[in-house]
Amino acid sequence: MTATKGLEGIVAATSSISSIHDGVLAYRGINIDELAERASFEEAAYLLWYGKLPTKGQLAILQQQLSDYAAIPESLVAQMKLFPSDSNTMAVLRTAVSALALYDENANDNSRESNQTKAIKLQAQLPTIIAAFARIRKGEEPIAPLKNVSLAHNFLYMLSGEEPDPIAVKALDQALVLHADHELNASTFSARVTIATLSDIYSGITAAIATLKGPLHGGANEAVMKMLTEIGSLDNVEPYILNKMANREKIMGFGHRVYKNGDPRAKHLQKLSRGLGLLKGDSTLYEMSVRIEELVTSQKGLKPNVDFYSASVYTLLGIPSDLFTPIFAISRLSGWTAHILEQLDDNRIIRPRAEYTGLTNQKYIPIDLR
Amino acid sequence: MTATKGLEGIVAATSSISSIHDGVLAYRGINIDELAERASFEEAAYLLWYGKLPTKGQLAILQQQLSDYAAIPESLVAQMKLFPSDSNTMAVLRTAVSALALYDENANDNSRESNQTKAIKLQAQLPTIIAAFARIRKGEEPIAPLKNVSLAHNFLYMLSGEEPDPIAVKALDQALVLHADHELNASTFSARVTIATLSDIYSGITAAIATLKGPLHGGANEAVMKMLTEIGSLDNVEPYILNKMANREKIMGFGHRVYKNGDPRAKHLQKLSRGLGLLKGDSTLYEMSVRIEELVTSQKGLKPNVDFYSASVYTLLGIPSDLFTPIFAISRLSGWTAHILEQLDDNRIIRPRAEYTGLTNQKYIPIDLR
Ligand SMILES: CC(C)(COP(=O)(O)OP(=O)(O)OC[C@H]1O[C@@H](n2cnc3c(N)ncnc32)[C@H](O)[C@@H]1OP(=O)(O)O)[C@@H](O)C(=O)NCCC(=O)NCCS
Ligand SMILES: CC(C)(COP(=O)(O)OP(=O)(O)OC[C@H]1O[C@@H](n2cnc3c(N)ncnc32)[C@H](O)[C@@H]1OP(=O)(O)O)[C@@H](O)C(=O)NCCC(=O)NCCS
Repeated sequence: MTATKGLEGIVAATSSISSIHDGVLAYRGINIDELAERASFEEAAYLLWYGKLPTKGQLAILQQQLSDYAAIPESLVAQMKLFPSDSNTMAVLRTAVSALALYDENANDNSRESNQTKAIKLQAQLPTIIAAFARIRKGEEPIAPLKNVSLAHNFLYMLSGEEPDPIAVKALDQALVLHADHELNASTFSARVTIATLSDIYSGITAAIATLKGPLHGGANEAVMKMLTEIGSLDNVEPYILNKMANREKIMGFGHRVYKNGDPRAKHLQKLSRGLGLLKGDSTLYEMSVRIEELVTSQKGLKPNVDFYSASVYTLLGIPSDLFTPIFAISRLSGWTAHILEQLDDNRIIRPRAEYTGLTNQKYIPIDLR
Repeated sequence: MTATKGLEGIVAATSSISSIHDGVLAYRGINIDELAERASFEEAAYLLWYGKLPTKGQLAILQQQLSDYAAIPESLVAQMKLFPSDSNTMAVLRTAVSALALYDENANDNSRESNQTKAIKLQAQLPTIIAAFARIRKGEEPIAPLKNVSLAHNFLYMLSGEEPDPIAVKALDQALVLHADHELNASTFSARVTIATLSDIYSGITAAIATLKGPLHGGANEAVMKMLTEIGSLDNVEPYILNKMANREKIMGFGHRVYKNGDPRAKHLQKLSRGLGLLKGDSTLYEMSVRIEELVTSQKGLKPNVDFYSASVYTLLGIPSDLFTPIFAISRLSGWTAHILEQLDDNRIIRPRAEYTGLTNQKYIPIDLR
């Protein structure tokens, strides 16, 4: 028995939700390129959950549910007010989602119907939680969600208390579509490992958030922004990146376990980044990003992944960098919950083996003789 | 690429912490049978963390640290007072441990030194959290931990506010030794999947608690007690179990992914269960358990696992059944954290693949045409 480090190439589950074949990502068989240009996030979430695109009536029902469920319990807001104001936002999200279970009398009902409802509830509540904490930490009161607007619109509104720019709404919506699912990525796999003990959907999502937080996964988008800030100017890109590469440090936002010839989502985010830069009359971040890409690709052969251009996109939308990974979580929640439902449809506990490399045949030596 | 359901038999990591070979479980090469009879939980935890049994001086330092760190933040207690009193105890533990990170300024420091300290802190704080909620939900104030007593002693004291019976302390201590680590069980694997994105130790432990909660894993001990209560009397064992088997329902506390000829921990817990029954002058639970074992083993060939006799042991210690899985978590935390440290020593993101079984080559159809 030899260990497969990082389970690279090991097929751990069957799935009919999303696929990566020959560098093409598809949700339920529909190329992400088409979805990125044409679908709303609500349509994409519906597609992931139910296996097909919604009719007008189905979409209207989902939008209504997302509106109806968006409020969060008062008692949870009271807890969040006790959180230190400098708390890590992903730790806050992990804690708050875990706490949501305490207010759901059906939390432990693992029937498909109950979990499908909880998936929609969680989808509605995640943006509210994140926006609430973003205000609470500044000493401001959370803003109640709007009715009858898209999830992207509502999130931006709850952050600022102002009607968001339609261009910002569209850009965020597109970013959400692009992040919604991605086969057995680490956080989705984590959600499946957790639910496979027949735990509950809140446990699965809490574990997924915990896993997404890491800088090798969702945490990379925040790390990319930190790098852009450290670089500071177009002129400093080359010395900074060359120095990092000389020190064999990782360049955040590059590389991928599965895509070796480039991440199909990156081009859409690059286009968004360019467009928003032009619109705001400041293309510095975009130009710096392009220069970084040129260097890393030519010197290392590594291509940007989904997290690279999303950093400049979110910054151009006026979003603080420590909300980037929580936004990733808002989007990926749709995929996580779809995978949890799928895992439960044909479940078996996920319990691999370890290759033992330690001491054998040791004795218990009494403490006086050690 | 064909999926290995539940990753059965797939070697996902190398590890030198614990091993299962030929039905023998060993921590760092020492047979669990020896440890169960002779080691304290603190010694076992030290062994898992540092690879060898502690000297007197080392053990004294660890005991001092466990005392020093056992208190939990006031603000966390205030949050727990906001939790509904009927909250699921594992959901409470998951939430409270996640929240602990908010009060640790070193939460995201992944150096071995920092994580080793956090492991000890978490080990000290878990019993305090569980005992605190067990009192808060009854409208009682949490009790501050004692200094200079064992972890098992402290936990029983914090639950009741009274000095515990030494026999109860010894029994709990032994149960904790037996549950401390178990190679790549589902919750430990979950902790490793989470930390492998370079998330943080609180994320890893939160995910592990979320995974342990499920009835196919740690949640089985509580489920066993539910079954014993439902059965109610020795006479009802046979009809109840035969009926369950006829309906092809699982009998909780039986079966195992790895052990097919019996779980080496079960005999120690059986002995404890028998001893405590005799001591309390009520062996009903023990006798019912033995009768269940005879039936399930003879009819199904399934042997009891670690969770089967632990249910009667904890009940005989006067512990409410919804604290059984949290107690499992107290013990397994030592293993979880040892595995997190080991994973970080030689890390690679854990990201398997899925076998796609869904639709291909679908088109985005505009909503009006659906
Ligand atoms: C995504 C990632 C975790 C994939 O991990 P993986 O499949 O285990 O990839 P590997 O670590 O085997 O990478 C293969 C080689 O490329 C190098 N490499 C991978 N990503 C790199 C990066 N971002 N910068 C520099 N070198 C990188 C590795 O060091 C390794 O080199 P080596 O063979 O000399 O050791 C990895 O590429 C990474 O850490 N990227 C940066 C973080 C990031 O952007 N994450 C978001 C992913 S969407
Ligand atoms: C521990 C457990 C999850 C292992 O799962 P696994 O390795 O996937 O085992 P499998 O489900 O492949 O079990 C093999 C067969 O035994 C049966 N089986 C396993 N455990 C059983 C149980 N407790 N009661 C009745 N039948 C059981 C399975 O149904 C299966 O039968 P099948 O081949 O006819 O479908 C499983 O034995 C179980 O659910 N036990 C009860 C829960 C429990 O006590 N968990 C604590 C473990 S420490």
